[in-house]
Amino acid sequence: MARKTPITVAYGDGIGPEIMEATLHIIKAAGARIEIEPVEVGEKVYLRGITAGIEPGAWESLRRTRVFLKAPITTPQGGGYKSLNVTTRTMFGLYANVRPCVAYYPFVKTLHPNMDVIIIRENEEDLYTGIEYRQTNDMVESLKLISRPGSEKIVRYAFEYARSHNRKKVTCFMKDNIMKLTDGLFHRVFSEIANEYPDISNETWIVDIGSAKLADTPEAFDVIVLPNLYGDILSDVAAQLAGSVGLAGSANIGDRCAMFEAIHGSAPRRAGQNIANPSGLLLATVMMLVHIDQPDVATLVHNAWLRTLEDGIHTYDIFTEGVSKQKAGTREFAEAVVARLGQEPEMLKPIYYTSAPEHISSEHVTITRAIEKKDLVGVDVFLDWRGGTPDELGETFKQVSGDDLELTMITNRGAKVWPQGMPETFCTDHWRCRFMSPIRGETVTHEQIIALLQRVANASFDFIKTENLYTFNDKIGYSLSQGE
Amino acid sequence: MARKTPITVAYGDGIGPEIMEATLHIIKAAGARIEIEPVEVGEKVYLRGITAGIEPGAWESLRRTRVFLKAPITTPQGGGYKSLNVTTRTMFGLYANVRPCVAYYPFVKTLHPNMDVIIIRENEEDLYTGIEYRQTNDMVESLKLISRPGSEKIVRYAFEYARSHNRKKVTCFMKDNIMKLTDGLFHRVFSEIANEYPDISNETWIVDIGSAKLADTPEAFDVIVLPNLYGDILSDVAAQLAGSVGLAGSANIGDRCAMFEAIHGSAPRRAGQNIANPSGLLLATVMMLVHIDQPDVATLVHNAWLRTLEDGIHTYDIFTEGVSKQKAGTREFAEAVVARLGQEPEMLKPIYYTSAPEHISSEHVTITRAIEKKDLVGVDVFLDWRGGTPDELGETFKQVSGDDLELTMITNRGAKVWPQGMPETFCTDHWRCRFMSPIRGETVTHEQIIALLQRVANASFDFIKTENLYTFNDKIGYSLSQGE
Repeated sequence: MARKTPITVAYGDGIGPEIMEATLHIIKAAGARIEIEPVEVGEKVYLRGITAGIEPGAWESLRRTRVFLKAPITTPQGGGYKSLNVTTRTMFGLYANVRPCVAYYPFVKTLHPNMDVIIIRENEEDLYTGIEYRQTNDMVESLKLISRPGSEKIVRYAFEYARSHNRKKVTCFMKDNIMKLTDGLFHRVFSEIANEYPDISNETWIVDIGSAKLADTPEAFDVIVLPNLYGDILSDVAAQLAGSVGLAGSANIGDRCAMFEAIHGSAPRRAGQNIANPSGLLLATVMMLVHIDQPDVATLVHNAWLRTLEDGIHTYDIFTEGVSKQKAGTREFAEAVVARLGQEPEMLKPIYYTSAPEHISSEHVTITRAIEKKDLVGVDVFLDWRGGTPDELGETFKQVSGDDLELTMITNRGAKVWPQGMPETFCTDHWRCRFMSPIRGETVTHEQIIALLQRVANASFDFIKTENLYTFNDKIGYSLSQGE
Repeated sequence: MARKTPITVAYGDGIGPEIMEATLHIIKAAGARIEIEPVEVGEKVYLRGITAGIEPGAWESLRRTRVFLKAPITTPQGGGYKSLNVTTRTMFGLYANVRPCVAYYPFVKTLHPNMDVIIIRENEEDLYTGIEYRQTNDMVESLKLISRPGSEKIVRYAFEYARSHNRKKVTCFMKDNIMKLTDGLFHRVFSEIANEYPDISNETWIVDIGSAKLADTPEAFDVIVLPNLYGDILSDVAAQLAGSVGLAGSANIGDRCAMFEAIHGSAPRRAGQNIANPSGLLLATVMMLVHIDQPDVATLVHNAWLRTLEDGIHTYDIFTEGVSKQKAGTREFAEAVVARLGQEPEMLKPIYYTSAPEHISSEHVTITRAIEKKDLVGVDVFLDWRGGTPDELGETFKQVSGDDLELTMITNRGAKVWPQGMPETFCTDHWRCRFMSPIRGETVTHEQIIALLQRVANASFDFIKTENLYTFNDKIGYSLSQGE
């Protein structure tokens, strides 16, 4: 008998314990060779004052098992609590969120019977690093971070996934007509890596019009790879278009750990009633079984589940008169799947798993990077100021320029307001003053920036943040202002 | 005879000139009391080397007329060109983008026959301020900015719009479970202002699950107000769900100016063939006629257009065998609308305009703001560093702390890596070091920050940016790290 694979299991909050029990019951009946290490996460842990929502001991278990099967949890409302999912993803480098969005027509209602889309969402970067600052009375800022290794990892994973799952096309969504540097980097990395996979076709869409296309014609897509925020929105849209968010599972794949979960929430109002649909968590568990190299069990479970669906045994959330044959509770649904282990669907396509996509390690990505020549050429100093008009600020602020750093422009919310601003531009109390060397192309030093900040402080201005301006291999590494 | 209203008109690129001619032909035939000031914008202007894509003289015209009717333009590919739309919106404070997304079933194919949603998108802030920096070899950053006055203006506009258009509900989409400060502000402002409109119901959705609901059941929504990026994606999704992006117009409303345009692009490959559908621009022009207080003409044109649609006279993009009766070119379609001026639709609901929604001025919003007590309590110093492990950085960097500012944590892409980081966390070359007073709750000074930066520079570190940490009325104005 094969050695059992230890997995870390969190039963979660709300409907979590019920659907986890149903799921584990099914996979054990199917012969899953696993050893469960239960850990506590979620609401109770938060309310004990642990803002990350996870006991320190749980990290130890995860370090050991490297596999995390997690039921939905409840994050209490109010300040101070961190998203456990975001924390887990970030701490363990779970860079890829994989969500199959598949239609099960005619057994589950959908307007898109032929939909079969895999959404691969970057999982660590973008606006989800959670770095935010309130800087003035008016203004709050959040940082969107996109890195080259982060982009390389997720794009490469998408192409490897496509290859190992016999998919034909990878599509990239981004918005680099507006975010030329951040989304521009994601786009460039996609194009570079796509070239290494001539057997898989590729295309790119600007996210707004691409999203419209997805909502209208999801069957036109195959694998979609995209940055975190777009992926967050569109994976939920795609799951809904396919049928129900309640049926979708997801995998979070990292270098040293992987987490599997349903995409729906903990639904506290449905808890304890034996009515919740375990399918989302079950399909996530099927992905886990593939990941821990038990494709035989994954195949058994997935096909038995498809057959149960086909046989019209449906939980309340997908129950439809005329289509469904029996309204099942959580436990009864699980028993129905167990009873069908070994059977295959007759109308829906059966699934045969072989192996997981090749693992993409960070190390592999890191060594491909070339280090570019970097030069400091200026600084943006941001101010909190309510003292008057942009022209008044410009005149006052020119005084602090000094011989070696020249005030070249002032913007408010990205719009140039000095020199030659438009009187119509509405100004908040959040100003950006750009300083560069008076000699075109000349580099500046950190000491010059420090001396500038000293002059700004001496003039009693509240500088709230700075952003250095760099060139990389003599290419400008900062955006121009609107109206520049 | 009434005085004519001057309007600034840009004929645009690609199919722009054709659909503009058709549109102007229709509204003149309907008796629009307008005087056209043509201006040049778009591709030709860009290629003349004007990165904003608009001639300086055009701004003068806009200042005079305050009304801009604009055909789609082509932005050349490649670096340096700024989005004209973003520039115009920002320079003239066009804070509200209004997009009706209406189904015209059965005359235009849609899966959502009863859809009638107004998307009101914040138009100036969020990631569209275009402030971006490449800071290290690995990392690029974009700033998301959300302001209280910006949020107040757009939310108030949405409720005023709902009231003047006899709408029953305003829905707000945001993501404040992750972006607690930025989207949290938008959510809070929404709740505050919703209280002032007891006659209109209100609701909020987290953007991911709200988007899924919109894609699945758009008829559940009425007016939706949302920050810029979500609005960009979802307004295109909604237009597509309603029928075709080719039929939708939009208004961009500001304090001192308003711009009206189709939501589709310039489609250069369709240009000069008399096939383009002028409906998007025409419906935008109807919104313009309401805006310049010619609701009589707007009503005439809109109903004649609906009747043309009903009569099955369709351009190629919406032509469907069995539904359409006559495939019309751009000019023929315009003539068909002109021939129906004075008629009303028989199956579709006729529209009767009265007046524009009350104007919301920035000044009004500004005076409601209370200035909160602000205290500087620390600083985040960001580094470009490839020297070793997080623990090594922590030990080295503790030396630069000094007596008055203490290193409290280091994060990489938002994840805490010192003290007590996880060895699994993948680290880029982009580090954030948080410094605060060693005495809990003590404020710090700008001079202390400057002295700290001097010590950082002396230790030969490349500090790439700083973000001050403030409290407002003693409430923390910065996020904690993941894992803190």
